[in-house]
Formats: sequence, C-alpha cells, structure tokens
Amino acid sequence: MKQLTIQSSQRNYPIVMEAGLRFHIKKWLNKKYSSILIITDDEIANKYLQDVAGSLGDQHIYSYIVPSGEASKSIEQYYKLQTKAIESGLDRKSLIIALGGGVIGDLGGFVAATFMRGIDYIQMPTTILAHDSSVGGKVAINHESGKNLIGCFYPPAAVLYDTETLKSLPYREVRSGYAEILKEGLISDNRLSEELLALSLNQVSSDQLENHLEAGIKVKANIVEEDEKESGVRKYLNLGHTLGHALEATLGYGKVTHGEAVANGMLFALHVSEDVKGEELPFNKLYNWMNVNKYPIVDIEEESIAKLIKSMKSDKKSVSGHIQMVLLNKVGEPTVENLDDSSVEAYIRTYIERMNKL
Amino acid sequence: MKQLTIQSSQRNYPIVMEAGLRFHIKKWLNKKYSSILIITDDEIANKYLQDVAGSLGDQHIYSYIVPSGEASKSIEQYYKLQTKAIESGLDRKSLIIALGGGVIGDLGGFVAATFMRGIDYIQMPTTILAHDSSVGGKVAINHESGKNLIGCFYPPAAVLYDTETLKSLPYREVRSGYAEILKEGLISDNRLSEELLALSLNQVSSDQLENHLEAGIKVKANIVEEDEKESGVRKYLNLGHTLGHALEATLGYGKVTHGEAVANGMLFALHVSEDVKGEELPFNKLYNWMNVNKYPIVDIEEESIAKLIKSMKSDKKSVSGHIQMVLLNKVGEPTVENLDDSSVEAYIRTYIERMNKL
Repeated sequence: MKQLTIQSSQRNYPIVMEAGLRFHIKKWLNKKYSSILIITDDEIANKYLQDVAGSLGDQHIYSYIVPSGEASKSIEQYYKLQTKAIESGLDRKSLIIALGGGVIGDLGGFVAATFMRGIDYIQMPTTILAHDSSVGGKVAINHESGKNLIGCFYPPAAVLYDTETLKSLPYREVRSGYAEILKEGLISDNRLSEELLALSLNQVSSDQLENHLEAGIKVKANIVEEDEKESGVRKYLNLGHTLGHALEATLGYGKVTHGEAVANGMLFALHVSEDVKGEELPFNKLYNWMNVNKYPIVDIEEESIAKLIKSMKSDKKSVSGHIQMVLLNKVGEPTVENLDDSSVEAYIRTYIERMNKL
Repeated sequence: MKQLTIQSSQRNYPIVMEAGLRFHIKKWLNKKYSSILIITDDEIANKYLQDVAGSLGDQHIYSYIVPSGEASKSIEQYYKLQTKAIESGLDRKSLIIALGGGVIGDLGGFVAATFMRGIDYIQMPTTILAHDSSVGGKVAINHESGKNLIGCFYPPAAVLYDTETLKSLPYREVRSGYAEILKEGLISDNRLSEELLALSLNQVSSDQLENHLEAGIKVKANIVEEDEKESGVRKYLNLGHTLGHALEATLGYGKVTHGEAVANGMLFALHVSEDVKGEELPFNKLYNWMNVNKYPIVDIEEESIAKLIKSMKSDKKSVSGHIQMVLLNKVGEPTVENLDDSSVEAYIRTYIERMNKL
C-alpha cells in the first residue's frame, strides 16, 4: 500500500494505492454518510460495481451507470445525475463515489460539487490516465464548443486507487495513461523522464507501474498544493495539452485517446521549445518512444491548420485571444508562453516539415 | 454612500450602497478585465442596462437578457449563458455582472462560478429582496424538483447596490424584500424587529429604507462570515424558509413572491416555536403587520398538507428524512430543530385552526 496526503485550501485528503482496495472502501470513509451514490460507466459497472457496493456495508447505496466515453460529460447526463441524486433522497450528508476513468471522475466530481451546493465525493480511478485527473480537484463537463469549459475546483474527500483494476486495461489505455506520467516527468525531473523514455509499455510490471504512478502523482500533488487554482505553476501540467486538446476536438473525441493526443502535443511543444529557447530537447527520443509504443502520430494536414488555431484560442488557458503554451527551457524546467496566431501557425508548418523528414 | 467589507474564505469583497452607483461602476473594478458580460432580465434591461454598460468605459462589453422570473433559473438558460460567454470570447480574466434581482444574481453567479472553473462576478441587486441573496456567495439554479438544488458557494468580487433602482419597485416587491429584512431582525435583534413590525411599508422614506437595508445586510454579513458553508449559524437565515419554499413550490412559483411565502413561513415558525419552546413570541404582531401591509395570508387546505410535507422533506436543509426548521427561543435567539413528519403535520393542523380563529 502507498499513501500520500494532499493539502488543499478546503481540506486535506488522502490518496491511497493498493491492490484490492475496492473490497475495503468502508475503512477509508472518515465519517458516517446518510447515503451513497456510486457513479460509474457501463464497462466498469460489469467489472467492479458489485465489489465496491458490497464493500460499503449496510448503508443506503444507490448507483447510476452512464455510457462509457467522453460523450457522457454532457449537460444532459449531468442533469440526469442531479435528478438521480434528488430522487434517491441524497442530502448534504451524502457521498458520491466516482468509479471509473477521467470521464467519470470529472462528471461525478462536478455533480458532487454542485449538488445542494456541494457534497463529499471520492475518486476511484480505474485507469492509469486518471491518476492525473483524480488528484487536484478539477471537475468539469464539456460544452459542445470545447472540453471542460463548465466546471469548478472542488477537492475530493479521498482518492482510492485499486491498482488491480489497472491489470485488465486495454493496451491503448496504458499508452494513454503513460503519456501523462511522461508529462509529469518532463516538467519536473530528468531522471524520471529518461527512465520512461527507455520503456517498452508492453513490458511494464505491476511494481513498475505502481512506482511510476506514485512518481507521477507526487509531481502532480506538489504542483496542486502550491497552486490550487491554476494561476501559476499548475499551468505547467498543461504541457502538450494546447495542441493535444485541439487535436482531440478537431479529429473528434474518441479518434485518438486523450493521452495519445497529449503525446503528439508534447512533441509539438518540444519542437516549439527548441526554437524559442534554443536548447536541444528530447524531441527525437519522444518521437522514437511514441513509435516503439505505437502511439498514433497525427499527420497534420494543411487544411486543418486554421481549425487547430481556432480551437487552441478557445482553450480555457487562452487569455485576450493569445494561445498559451507550456514550453521547456530544459527537461524539468517548464515555462508558460503566450503566442500569437501567426507564430503558432508558423510553428505548425515547420513541425509538419520536420515530421515529413523523419 | 455606505460601505461594508465581507470576509470570505476565498476573498474579501466590498458591499457598496449609493444612489446613482450604476453610473460609476468602473471605479469599483479592482482589476483590468479582458471582457465583461452583463447578465440581466428583460424588465431591468429596459431601465438600467444602458447606464451600466455605458459606465464601464471602452472595454469589450457584452450583454445577455433572460426573461424576468424564476423560470429563468433553469438548466437550459444556464447552458445558453455558458454558450453566450464562450461565443463572446470570455476568458479566465473576464468579468460577469449580474444586474437584477435574486434570480439574476443566483443564475449569473452560478454561471460565473462554473465558467472555465470560475471567473469574477459582481452582484448589482435591483430589488430589496436581493440585499439578502447578493451577500454571502450562495449561487444556484433550480431543478424541476426544487429550488436552488444545483449550485455552489462562490463569493462575488463586489456587491454594488444602486439604491436609486429601488425607487421604482412595485409595492409587491417592497413587501417581498421587507420580509427578509424582518427575518434578519427576528433572528438577531429585538429592537430592529420591533421597529419593522411597527412599519407601514407604503410610508417608508428612502433614508429609512437605506438604514433598514444596511441593518439587514449587517446581520447577514456577520452570519456568513462566521459560517460561510452553512454548517452552523448560517442556517438561522432560513427562518420561515422551510414552509416558505414549500408554499412557493406547491402553489407554483410566482403565485406568491418569495418574501410573501417567507412571511407566511415565519408566522408558522413562530407558531411552532411557541409550542416547542413554551415562550410567547410576536405571532399576533407579525400577523397584524402582514395584514396592514397586505401580505397574502396563505390559506392552507387539508388536501395540500401531504404535498407540503413532501416538499419540506426534499429541502436541502433536510437530513436523513427529517424536516429542519429554524425556531426562536425568543426574538434574537434562533435554534435549529429536526422534526419528524408527524409532528410537522400536527403543527400544520393546529396552525390552520389558530388561523381560522383570527
């Protein structure tokens, strides 16, 4: 078992990682709740819902299953969940458990944050990727114009990570999750990124995975403790996300996974960083790592450049119409830069050229 | 001009009251905003939107007008406002101004609280009633099953109260607002409640009104500073609201105003308090005051009792199926009591009997 404590302005909360944790949830509830609503998706429900519900004892337990996938982070699904919570008789002393990947964590967390002005919730991530989103209290749903545009900062009561649930992950999800761990390495620690960039993801052992998750969570935890509301260093966590989000939006959600999009976004960020900062960065190593581990390398087409730029400008991080990117002075030393459209467009073009030569 | 400062956990913010304040809004913006969205309703827009927009200088100013009335606190209107904010290019450095009564303040505040995880907003109340809702950071929309069920705690950047906008209020709105000021008197201060209960509302001068508003806001401010998240003394502000909300919901929103419903709810709360606490309270004085000032006295019918009980139980304040009511040991000394259905039902019956004898 591994355990960390996160300090947030509203509360401190534990992050617990353990194989089989889903059978011992009750132990980690630090108060008596009047009722509990488990929110999960149809894939996870089949595998783990019974285990979790059964571990909670003789409480009033309800569950609600949404279709798996990004489309469930909609205003309609959000309202249905509010209705479910009301109809189940949840009150201010009730608990929501978000059992699933990042979609479920974001959606369930936002429901908890706004049900009767906020009730407790627990994150139970079931993907590697969600090690990132489950820590730090960012919760949100999507607007048809963009991801996570409607949401708030609302820390969970706990993050309970049953690492057994990661064993059955499809390889694509492993890849998606490791992109965020690599991001955490790149913005903080050369040793961790060197280790990750040498890794074949289909040969990772359970122990290695737990160690990598812990390392990633520690990076994230340190950052969100320093800057909960993303006015400063928390922005560094967006490395790769400016182009990443735009790729997801323009290709259509689900075409590439979030982590795959972020991996492509990081490659682009390293390309831009080398030009702006004049330092050599592990662009080629990342490119090779993506190839070895079968990340889809997105081929950006001439006619999609304008759409990408527009999407990057509508990102939450953008201020006064500039595009905000996280760049690296060197590995472990990120900075935030505001770039105008034409510079970003020029960088996309030189990126396309560079990729064509590889 | 009158000015107070409210201390909340997230920020301190000023409450400013002044005749003609709407012409000087810019002076009270404490930072440069990238753009401003004014949210108001069709009645207020005709009267004051131009004044407010004109006072903001050469910024990017947008406005969005919703139909006046409680029905605008819907999930649909909320989403339309998010869309408007995105399409207008608002970013994290933008400001929302909620110009109107409580509906606009609650709706505009909740949009601000959840747009890109929270941006600044300013409350510009234009009713007496909104002196209460604009202070303390409670923002929300309604669910079809009940008022304010979806929302959060999110303090404004400022509350700017142009008392000139109160001069043209319909008498019904004056009545509605004074019910909340009286509530603030009853829970805190015998002198203030005595003064208010002797008042004919059609004879109140501007100076008197400003003084009463200030007194009410001070009560509210002291309470929310002590208990921002309503775990303790903030509940006292719900005096009259348990039955009040239920009356609004069962009669249909708009049949009685919020304040009129609260006045009836306070009468019921005094009735229950006298029985539970065995002290004589100003039940008759309140009843006479309501008559003098033409508050509708709701005639509770036998067949609506079950519906009222159900509605009171689904209130946010209710925990574990009990009905929570604020009672008075004496004027200025409120307590919170959890009552079971059958006691509340019995009290409604003795209340009906008592009212029939008056």
